[in-house]
Amino acid sequence: MSENRFLEDFLVGEIFTTGGVTITEGEIIHFALQYDPQPFHLDITAGLKSPYKGLIASGFFTAAICFRMFIQMGIFSVCSIGSPGVDELRWLTPVRPGDTLKTETRILEIRPSASKPDRGILRMKYVGTNQNGTSVVSFIVNHLLRRGNK
Amino acid sequence: MSENRFLEDFLVGEIFTTGGVTITEGEIIHFALQYDPQPFHLDITAGLKSPYKGLIASGFFTAAICFRMFIQMGIFSVCSIGSPGVDELRWLTPVRPGDTLKTETRILEIRPSASKPDRGILRMKYVGTNQNGTSVVSFIVNHLLRRGNK
Repeated sequence: MSENRFLEDFLVGEIFTTGGVTITEGEIIHFALQYDPQPFHLDITAGLKSPYKGLIASGFFTAAICFRMFIQMGIFSVCSIGSPGVDELRWLTPVRPGDTLKTETRILEIRPSASKPDRGILRMKYVGTNQNGTSVVSFIVNHLLRRGNK
Repeated sequence: MSENRFLEDFLVGEIFTTGGVTITEGEIIHFALQYDPQPFHLDITAGLKSPYKGLIASGFFTAAICFRMFIQMGIFSVCSIGSPGVDELRWLTPVRPGDTLKTETRILEIRPSASKPDRGILRMKYVGTNQNGTSVVSFIVNHLLRRGNK
């Protein structure tokens, strides 16, 4: 679905909605072993004794998988040159094995660079929801995008 | 190095410094395939043609590995019950294969919950640095920690 769009081809308020991904117990535990080894992300028994009453996904996993769902749509595949950062990353509802997540993104702001005429920042809000329509994560990415060769 | 510390056992201004982790080409590409499939994270040839002039790590990977370095110290292993979110995640310098990262954390604020007497928020700033002492990532985690059974 690559479209060869550049910074100036996007509109504030534009919304994109991804397909879904079902989150498995195996992937939750695998990610936690590598990047977030806390008992309630790793160990079902410990999860049951925690305030979450079961295994839950690392928040870094949930953010990364929701980011990935948007990236794989290919909308930024020609113009993205990275990001200076993320604001207001919020974990709203625990993600559990068997949940199916989707992501909706909305463009908040588009700001051409004052110093580098070939690029600019596109601020975009990501909201991940589960199969019940409950928001599980939200965050704002400052995307660094190329302008077209005009 | 678990110490059985609870919310009230920490001090604002307290600093922790982790050991180091060397970041490999394989792990950069593996993470990107799963969570951030952009050309400059996946493909050495594409990376050379990008503004980064080589393969660089996904920012989500860099944040997660720096978080993990602190978590594996075990300082929060008894008291952590998760996090409502992260503020001001900033990618400051690209991370490349062969870089060795360390993380320093500093406690910014400790705030017992007004409504739930068994817990509170500890705000902590994470700064990841490379082998040259250059900061590569920074972010603030709002850690939800238990208070001791007093």
